[in-house]
This record gives sequence, C-alpha cells and structure tokens, in this order.
Amino acid sequence: MQHIILCGGSGTRLWPLSNRHTPKQLLPLFDGKSLLQLTWLRNAFACSSVLAIVNEQHAEEAAIQMSKEGAGDITLMAEPVGRNTAAAIALAAFTTTPDTILLITPADHLIGTPELYAETIETAKELAAANNLVTIGLQPLYPETGYGYIQYDGYDVVRFTEKPDAVTAEAMLKSGDYLWNSGIFCGKAGVLLEQLEEHAPQIYHAAALAAAEWMQTGSISVDAMEAIPSDSIDYAVLEKSSIVKVVPSAIEWNDVGGYEALADALASHYRYSNHQAVFIGSDPVNSMVIGKDKLVALVGIEDVVVVNTPDALLILKKGKGQDVKQLHQWVKENRPELL
Amino acid sequence: MQHIILCGGSGTRLWPLSNRHTPKQLLPLFDGKSLLQLTWLRNAFACSSVLAIVNEQHAEEAAIQMSKEGAGDITLMAEPVGRNTAAAIALAAFTTTPDTILLITPADHLIGTPELYAETIETAKELAAANNLVTIGLQPLYPETGYGYIQYDGYDVVRFTEKPDAVTAEAMLKSGDYLWNSGIFCGKAGVLLEQLEEHAPQIYHAAALAAAEWMQTGSISVDAMEAIPSDSIDYAVLEKSSIVKVVPSAIEWNDVGGYEALADALASHYRYSNHQAVFIGSDPVNSMVIGKDKLVALVGIEDVVVVNTPDALLILKKGKGQDVKQLHQWVKENRPELL
Repeated sequence: MQHIILCGGSGTRLWPLSNRHTPKQLLPLFDGKSLLQLTWLRNAFACSSVLAIVNEQHAEEAAIQMSKEGAGDITLMAEPVGRNTAAAIALAAFTTTPDTILLITPADHLIGTPELYAETIETAKELAAANNLVTIGLQPLYPETGYGYIQYDGYDVVRFTEKPDAVTAEAMLKSGDYLWNSGIFCGKAGVLLEQLEEHAPQIYHAAALAAAEWMQTGSISVDAMEAIPSDSIDYAVLEKSSIVKVVPSAIEWNDVGGYEALADALASHYRYSNHQAVFIGSDPVNSMVIGKDKLVALVGIEDVVVVNTPDALLILKKGKGQDVKQLHQWVKENRPELL
Repeated sequence: MQHIILCGGSGTRLWPLSNRHTPKQLLPLFDGKSLLQLTWLRNAFACSSVLAIVNEQHAEEAAIQMSKEGAGDITLMAEPVGRNTAAAIALAAFTTTPDTILLITPADHLIGTPELYAETIETAKELAAANNLVTIGLQPLYPETGYGYIQYDGYDVVRFTEKPDAVTAEAMLKSGDYLWNSGIFCGKAGVLLEQLEEHAPQIYHAAALAAAEWMQTGSISVDAMEAIPSDSIDYAVLEKSSIVKVVPSAIEWNDVGGYEALADALASHYRYSNHQAVFIGSDPVNSMVIGKDKLVALVGIEDVVVVNTPDALLILKKGKGQDVKQLHQWVKENRPELL
C-alpha cells in the first residue's frame, strides 16, 4: 500500500498554540512528536511509501519531521492553495499506478490502540483489494453533532449522514446502527479515479491537469489548483458511490479537534505534566497548562486550559473550546499579525 | 505639619505584580502614578515637608518618584532592615523638633474622597495641636477580621480591638460603636516620644541611638536597627496611652490589601481598561487583566484576576486573594529567584 497523508489542515481551534506557521499537525506535543510523525509511524507497518499533501508553506517542516522518523521514501506534494480532500486525493491518485492501494489518512488524528488499528487497516486493505472503496467507521461515544455518521450493516454502508442535529445524533447513537466517519479510508488508485470521474467529473479533469503539471515540474500553479472545485471526498464520492464499504472499529480515536480533546489526549496517554505550573486551592488534575516561558500559578481556578505562547495568552474554561473559533475570528479582524 | 510616609512595606499579596524590587507602593498602577506618589500628593496641602522611611533597596526609586511629583523638600530615611511601625515612627520623631506635628501615613493606601480627607486631617491636626495622639477611624463597611477596630464616643477612644474573630467583628459592625483603625495618625513629635518613653522604653532608647547615628552619618547600621524591638505603634503606644483621640471619617478608603481590592480600585476610580485583553463568552466587567506584553484572551471565564509579568503568570479566582500568601510561600520555597 501507499500511505497518503492529508496534511493541509490549518485549524483555528488550537490558536494560539497552533498558528499559520505551525498548524496543529506539526506541533511537537506528544512526547516530542507531532501528530504528523505519529500518523506516519502508525501506518509504516503497512505501507512501503508515503505521499504527504501539504500546504506549501509547511512543506519544509513536514519533510524535516518525516525524515526524522526514518521516512526515507517520502514524496511531498505542496499545494499552493488548499482545495479540500477530494482534490488532494485525486492528485495523489493520479501520481501512482492504478492497482496501488492507497491508505488515506488525515495528519492530525491520534489513535491510542495501535494493534487494533493495524487489524482494522488489514481488513480495509483486503476489502480495497477486492475493488471497494473502504472507509473506517468508529463506534460513536456520544451524540457529537460535528461529525459525519454512517449507517452500516456488516461491512455494507446503508447511508451517510453529515453533521446531524442534536436530536438526530441522539437517536443514531441509541440505535446502535451508526458509526462515526473517521476520515481514514482505503482504495485502489484506479478505482478511486473511476468513481471520481463518474461522480465528480470536474474534479477529476481539473485534478488530472494539475497532477500532470506536478509530475512535469515538481510543483502546481495557483491557477491549476484553483481550477479544481473544492469539495470533500465524502460529498464528492463516498456518499454517491455504490462500491463503498465500511470497517467498524473500536480503536481509541481522538481528532484533537479542540483544547478539551487535546487535554484528554495529553492527560490519558502522555502523562503530560503541568510543568512550570503551581496550583493553590486548584485541582491540578482537571486543568491543563501549556507554555514554558514562565511560572504559571492558578489560585482557586478549576477546569481551565491555559496556553501561554509568545503571541498570546489564552485562558479557556473547559467545555467552551468551540468558542475558540470566535476568538480566532476576532484575532483575524483585530490582530491578524498574531495568527 | 511634617508628613511622615511609612514606605517600608513589601507585601506578599500582590505577587507577581509586586516583588522585592518593586513593592506595591512603588507600582505605577494608577494613571501612571504609584500609591507613594498619590500619598504624597494627597497630603501636600497640609504639610510643608516630608520624611519617607523606606527599605534601603527601594530608597532610590522612592526618591525619583517623589521628586517627579514636585516634592522638593523631601528627606529619605533608609532602613537596612524593617522593624515595624513603632521603630520607624520613633526614628522620625527623633529627627524633628518637639512641637512639630507629624502626620503619619502608610504609603500604600488609596483614598477616593480628597476633600473629605482634607477635612478629616484638619480636625486631626487641631486635636494634635492640643497635645493628643490622634488616629483616623473609618466607618466599617463589612465584618473584616484582618483590621483593628476602635470603639469610640465622639473623639474619645473607648477601646482598641485587634483582628477580631468573625462573630466579634459582626457584633462590632452591628453595634455602630466601632471604627476601623486606618493606620493614619497625627501627633506632636514631643508628645509621641513622651508616650513612647512611658509605654515602650526599649523602643524609645534604641531608636534614639539609631536616630543619632542617622543624623551624624546619614545612614543607620544593621546593628543599630536590629537593636530596636519590632512592634507596631498600635500595640506599643496607642492601645496603652490615655491621650489618644480618634477622628471618625467617611472617606473612601482602600488599603489595596489584595487583588480584589486592587481590582475594585482600578475599576471604580481609574476606569482601568482591560487593554490587550479580549473576552469571548466572558464578562469584561467582572475580571481584571494586568500585563502588557501580549494579547490575553479569556474564553468562558468569569470573575478572575490575570496578572502577566515577566516572572510569572497568575490566574486568580476573585475571592481567593488571601490564598496568594500561600502561593508566595510556595514560590519562596521553590522558586525564590522570582520573588
């Protein structure tokens, strides 16, 4: 298999910890490793080569991080502008042979159960070898409204539901028939392109031209990139295709989608110590302090995330992580130099 | 009158805003002025000269601040070690003529009603001219257990009660017969020394020697200073003397004894703007952010004081200001270089 890493994200929900120079997936937060590095290491057992599709301003750092982890046979494809996952995946598919199975993963997830993950991927690979497009479905843990859901029956997909409302999410959770869409999937390059051509022909044709440009010159022009319609692979292909399978999996999965998720990950797996922090009348267990330049003292404060960077200091009540988007918007309008 | 400023304090309750280099009274927090400067300005109407008694490591900064406010005729007496208020006041009294009325004030109080204050001081001065020792009593606002109380009858003192328990404080507040002891008082130098000789002869004699040393050499040795017993003027003289009067006053008074008091003072009198701070889902009115080096963002956080200094970052729940003492103790034991 070839590993395709979708490394183009530039999240807004971990500002000021992440910023335009260092997006979430490149932060060395996990025992000194980044989510990108962990993603590569997690999948190395199954993949002989890796192609990372990355925003051009992060290409150099991504290459350095990957090579540190022994990823010798790595190809980087730098996007001058991001055009969502369908474009990135199409570009990747055009640069390889039709029979190569692509294992496509986001660069910014954390998975706590490597053996179970490996089993899941082996199953997905088998289904992909039989010319299916295969997505990994996760056991839902709570009625999250921000994810996509997959109604399933064995390995068969009954239907996709994107970002349901709270009532629907609750009902889906209770029914036991639904999985979360992990964003990890698997398929032969040729099968993927076939399905793209059928269900999203504009993406298919524009991506073919951009991929040709890249193979000739080693880079993609802004014009070629912007000619590709921006859409997710879920909308463009998976929800429309009749050859999609799902592998249900109980892997421990964290999309590090905000500070609460990050705090959970650091606390449970990395024994993150609130170094440089002192707690007076405050429980050190329910708060997280990130930032090394000075002593941080919490007095009578509970359930907060404190992030102290050279650019800014964030003090966030746990449970309000979604509001960091609003903060990001404020900073964009008022102090754009800090992003 | 001569103004005597007791400038020796080095509070622990405003760390890290204040530290050993810059104690509370020297911080330029109030429209760019310090409590020391405001103290001098508030009393200038009544005093022809001023003597500030200050820890020797802060003498230079105190002199600079006073001269900025036009205090030409200022004398600084640098203490090599602090020996509490009785020692400082005795030293001051020995350096002036017996008939001079001394107006003795702490350097670290904030008073919001200058005209009422001036009236109060004029009344105190008249009583001092008649050979009384005169203290300023404040209308108590709540059953504070950290202050001294004075039971009064007109200008007469019935009794002093130091730091009562909560039940006693509540009863004293309700009775209407008690005032808070402000720490501001007034008396002729000769009368003060007479009373000191009678009620605290050891302080009197040791201070006489130290004052003589200062008048000869311009400085006081550690030995001479340490020979003076350490006691407050309240314990050493006021509670024992029969010639003490009290002037009840309704001045708006704030001892800036902790972060809550500081936040109140800044909010109510100085229209302190939480500059460099952004509030998302957080009320900017009930929190205070001090620190200019970077943007501070509060998301979903209420009723906190945030102090960001080069040494440390403090996040304090309002109402827990007393616990800053514990924090100070922790820092003393673990990171003494930060004090």
